Amino acid sequence: MTDDPALFESMRAELFSAVIADALDAAGFRNQIMRHDIRPLFPEAIAVGRAMTVLSVDVYHIPEEPYKLELEAVDALKTGDVLVAQTNGSVRSSLWGELLTTAATVRGARGAVIDGFTRDALSITRMKFPLFVRGIAPFDSKGRSDVIAYGVPVECGGVRVEPGDIVFGDNDGIVAIPRSVEKTVIEAAFEKVRGERIVKLALENGMSATDAFRKYGIL
Amino acid sequence: MTDDPALFESMRAELFSAVIADALDAAGFRNQIMRHDIRPLFPEAIAVGRAMTVLSVDVYHIPEEPYKLELEAVDALKTGDVLVAQTNGSVRSSLWGELLTTAATVRGARGAVIDGFTRDALSITRMKFPLFVRGIAPFDSKGRSDVIAYGVPVECGGVRVEPGDIVFGDNDGIVAIPRSVEKTVIEAAFEKVRGERIVKLALENGMSATDAFRKYGIL
Amino acid sequence: MTDDPALFESMRAELFSAVIADALDAAGFRNQIMRHDIRPLFPEAIAVGRAMTVLSVDVYHIPEEPYKLELEAVDALKTGDVLVAQTNGSVRSSLWGELLTTAATVRGARGAVIDGFTRDALSITRMKFPLFVRGIAPFDSKGRSDVIAYGVPVECGGVRVEPGDIVFGDNDGIVAIPRSVEKTVIEAAFEKVRGERIVKLALENGMSATDAFRKYGIL
Amino acid sequence: MTDDPALFESMRAELFSAVIADALDAAGFRNQIMRHDIRPLFPEAIAVGRAMTVLSVDVYHIPEEPYKLELEAVDALKTGDVLVAQTNGSVRSSLWGELLTTAATVRGARGAVIDGFTRDALSITRMKFPLFVRGIAPFDSKGRSDVIAYGVPVECGGVRVEPGDIVFGDNDGIVAIPRSVEKTVIEAAFEKVRGERIVKLALENGMSATDAFRKYGIL
Amino acid sequence: MTDDPALFESMRAELFSAVIADALDAAGFRNQIMRHDIRPLFPEAIAVGRAMTVLSVDVYHIPEEPYKLELEAVDALKTGDVLVAQTNGSVRSSLWGELLTTAATVRGARGAVIDGFTRDALSITRMKFPLFVRGIAPFDSKGRSDVIAYGVPVECGGVRVEPGDIVFGDNDGIVAIPRSVEKTVIEAAFEKVRGERIVKLALENGMSATDAFRKYGIL
Amino acid sequence: MTDDPALFESMRAELFSAVIADALDAAGFRNQIMRHDIRPLFPEAIAVGRAMTVLSVDVYHIPEEPYKLELEAVDALKTGDVLVAQTNGSVRSSLWGELLTTAATVRGARGAVIDGFTRDALSITRMKFPLFVRGIAPFDSKGRSDVIAYGVPVECGGVRVEPGDIVFGDNDGIVAIPRSVEKTVIEAAFEKVRGERIVKLALENGMSATDAFRKYGIL
Repeated sequence: MTDDPALFESMRAELFSAVIADALDAAGFRNQIMRHDIRPLFPEAIAVGRAMTVLSVDVYHIPEEPYKLELEAVDALKTGDVLVAQTNGSVRSSLWGELLTTAATVRGARGAVIDGFTRDALSITRMKFPLFVRGIAPFDSKGRSDVIAYGVPVECGGVRVEPGDIVFGDNDGIVAIPRSVEKTVIEAAFEKVRGERIVKLALENGMSATDAFRKYGIL
Repeated sequence: MTDDPALFESMRAELFSAVIADALDAAGFRNQIMRHDIRPLFPEAIAVGRAMTVLSVDVYHIPEEPYKLELEAVDALKTGDVLVAQTNGSVRSSLWGELLTTAATVRGARGAVIDGFTRDALSITRMKFPLFVRGIAPFDSKGRSDVIAYGVPVECGGVRVEPGDIVFGDNDGIVAIPRSVEKTVIEAAFEKVRGERIVKLALENGMSATDAFRKYGIL
Repeated sequence: MTDDPALFESMRAELFSAVIADALDAAGFRNQIMRHDIRPLFPEAIAVGRAMTVLSVDVYHIPEEPYKLELEAVDALKTGDVLVAQTNGSVRSSLWGELLTTAATVRGARGAVIDGFTRDALSITRMKFPLFVRGIAPFDSKGRSDVIAYGVPVECGGVRVEPGDIVFGDNDGIVAIPRSVEKTVIEAAFEKVRGERIVKLALENGMSATDAFRKYGIL
Repeated sequence: MTDDPALFESMRAELFSAVIADALDAAGFRNQIMRHDIRPLFPEAIAVGRAMTVLSVDVYHIPEEPYKLELEAVDALKTGDVLVAQTNGSVRSSLWGELLTTAATVRGARGAVIDGFTRDALSITRMKFPLFVRGIAPFDSKGRSDVIAYGVPVECGGVRVEPGDIVFGDNDGIVAIPRSVEKTVIEAAFEKVRGERIVKLALENGMSATDAFRKYGIL
Repeated sequence: MTDDPALFESMRAELFSAVIADALDAAGFRNQIMRHDIRPLFPEAIAVGRAMTVLSVDVYHIPEEPYKLELEAVDALKTGDVLVAQTNGSVRSSLWGELLTTAATVRGARGAVIDGFTRDALSITRMKFPLFVRGIAPFDSKGRSDVIAYGVPVECGGVRVEPGDIVFGDNDGIVAIPRSVEKTVIEAAFEKVRGERIVKLALENGMSATDAFRKYGIL
Repeated sequence: MTDDPALFESMRAELFSAVIADALDAAGFRNQIMRHDIRPLFPEAIAVGRAMTVLSVDVYHIPEEPYKLELEAVDALKTGDVLVAQTNGSVRSSLWGELLTTAATVRGARGAVIDGFTRDALSITRMKFPLFVRGIAPFDSKGRSDVIAYGVPVECGGVRVEPGDIVFGDNDGIVAIPRSVEKTVIEAAFEKVRGERIVKLALENGMSATDAFRKYGIL
């Protein structure tokens, strides 16, 4: 397998969350698909990279140093990272916004997946930053939520993500690939993409779905 | 009333789910509008045709013949059919995808309404297939859900649908028309469309909403 | 501060719900952001004006004079008003539609924020009317819901709104500005917009997020 | 069929919501069971009588005459009535309490079914008043909710109830019997109670469930 | 007003959450009643005292010193305190249990109100410790949740509670009394209890609810 | 380890769901606690035995042989079994009732855990059958739900249960013990029960919670 940047580019160009999910299923990892209510800001958004994890929680007072760990986490982003944030179901604070998108982009981040809210959604869409969120709202996080750790395991969209796991998000949703099966799963996904093209052609030519599945074993 | 294909074309060209809903209300059928969380993949999607019903349920083991009845149901679709599927609130499986869309399109289906999830949403949008779903997620259904029957009564979006009922979905939502009032309701809907144009003109010319309703009895 | 129409125009041109929310926070009003599930019909929608409040409730019989207070409320809209409606969580009726949009537009209304449903969503989008709603569905309100008061305090999206309060909605969400801090908050919002541009430039030039926040105190 | 008081007494002594539900199913009325989150204050509570319907809605200002229609409705209760109230999903007001229970009891009411909240739950339990509610909370309704009609059709727990319909609530839940099938349904319910006793005896004596259902057709 | 222990005893003996809620309403504090899904473990539970606040959040890794701040908070409880804990909606960890109840009781705590889960519910009930929770589940909190602060403002059941505020919980629910109106509200509550007894007597003697409210102004 | 009946008796007499959950955590199985909304019908209910799994789904037509697999499953119960049923979130049917309880008791079943509804709750409570359910409602299952398989893996309360796994439910909730760690987990649970008694004594004697945890490592 090639180094990360080249790998991520070819994954972005050729793979889909659905085929990666199928490859994860085949490898026995059947709980790697995040909850469906985390959605991309725009349909063409594709985020692929290694997880930089963030754990944010709701608070009800202004901490001594507001934003401290959140800013640290963004400053620590490296080329090829995807920020993956858990907010524990917050519906009263927005973790992300235009300025953090700017800082993340400058550092080479390849997207963000937030089980929480963003603000500045239209500006971020115009910047073409592949951002996946549970909602949009104009909240400042100061005194509403606080990042208490980063670089720790989190659950995002119901899926456990370890720092450094590859995450892949597109218009269908987001999957996280555990390190131990990374190579197998990605190779199997590239393989399956090819098979699906053949089945689609057969169906377009009028083969019944039953026969196509019997012949190719793909759906 | 004309035969189905011509009727469906004129319904698609001139009617709206809202006027059909009003005509159903007037006929005393006030529970024919599906839950609002079943949405079209793209705003211009219009599905109109007779219901081919499918009943899918969540499972936790891989059945002996995965996909069997689902593939049969798709292969049984006829010109003018709209697939109407109930998944019993599943949030962990996707019933539909690009390959099934391809097979359904080849067979002449005029859309699908799924009280559940699809994957391959972007491809299906590009194919302009009028698909209405409760969510998007990259799940394979194998070992997650299974079709246990088709051609049976179902409840989709909270509305009972019998096989063969006409369903109509557009950007406002989806309505199902019971057989017994099909002719009356569709005729009344065509009639109401004409009335609304007149009221809109009157309002644009400055008539008060109160006066317009008093004069035309339409809102 | 200038008169309302000029003020609303410059607010629409230069402000965002997010900076107004920040200014409200700074003034000690931290509960002025509506629930995130009230969304604009189209991303560029901006509604700004003074609240004309409406209170609608679900009913299960056809009232003696259906639509009466609803029509009165729409007819009472004045230039610069934004209709703000509470439906008490209704999921079985649509308060708004194309004809009311037409009547409201003719009267100079600058948008509507409805903690409830609309129908005719595609037509209203084409009319570019800035409408914010909790959902889309083809229900007629007759026999399903009824306006029982207008021009009274309501809670919309969880925020108390008094008649005459300025409301501002854009793609990030909706905020309501209490009368008592109106002048302060709007001035502070204009000020913050300027500050954010400077920080964005600094971040684009590679300053760390931590340093930028330390230097400018803005995030 | 006997007059109401005697009928209600024998229903209370011998019937269950479950057998009445079965009899309603058999008569083709399959949507007469209220949502399961409306629960009795104490397990032995049984409410049976004719529905006196009340429609309450959330408000955000103190009405001119707070409590007016609510007090009228309670004063209008007659012997054998069960108050059936819809609050449109309110979670911020309590419709019922000890003083209304006292007034209702004096007037001969045989219970209350409220798709909403009560307060004074412990006192009402001590009074043995058969009250069914969706929740308990210490809210005063003044300025939070208001009764806008009584003696009109309502939906309570998802079931349409007309004034005068017989409602029956016990520890399993609440059913409403439409007037048109009242006699048939109640007679069939008395009949089914007898059948179930026989089946229970057979099962206690070791007959298999499969055989018992085959022999008696009852489950 | 007397010192706390004597005050709390007389409040426990004579007051109800409902009359305190009414007194808070009258003082203009209308958002002091916690969400109805926080319930006592047993119907006779009454918790009254000053809030010792705790803020717990969900985590997905075992912290360096698990339980550290939670144990500190419990050890810091003083006679007359009621522990008031926010868990940010956690449904995967239990904050409380029998051993913490034992420690809290030894320190003189007068109850606990937890917007979260407990375990050992039956033992705690047998100890007659007035515990109010959102749910019961056998989770250990280690690696699932962590207390990140205590003695800070929190929102519990949707109500902002400052350390030292008096909270009162009984079978109807829980109210929090802001410091600034403590004296007024408690005095008014004692007063209202007396009024309600008179009205109840009048109603028992057959006065109509309408007349009783007109005469006494109490409901 | 002893044979099942003796083992189950000593587990029922001495263990708690909480200590078993702790032992499962220690063995690295941290997702074995069912969702907290599955509750026992009465506080003293304890169910312990091997899982006989059932998979039920909602249907909208009366199957050819209603109840068929459900009756078979009940007839197949053996001494020491606990029926564990998944209904895929059904809120419109009751899987269980008095007659099935009777049949199950006669066959030696030691309880039932149903991620769904029961009816006849009061009778079942009087029979002291340890039944755990998500809700109570008087629905007949005929034409509302149907058992499509038994003896297959299911997810109940969010936990995967294989046929034959030991499940243990008490007032705190329900845990399922995977076969592979059965022996280890149960032995560790018996061990932990002893440790907790010592800590409780220390706390009752005034030791601080911090010191107790430092000394005994138990909370």
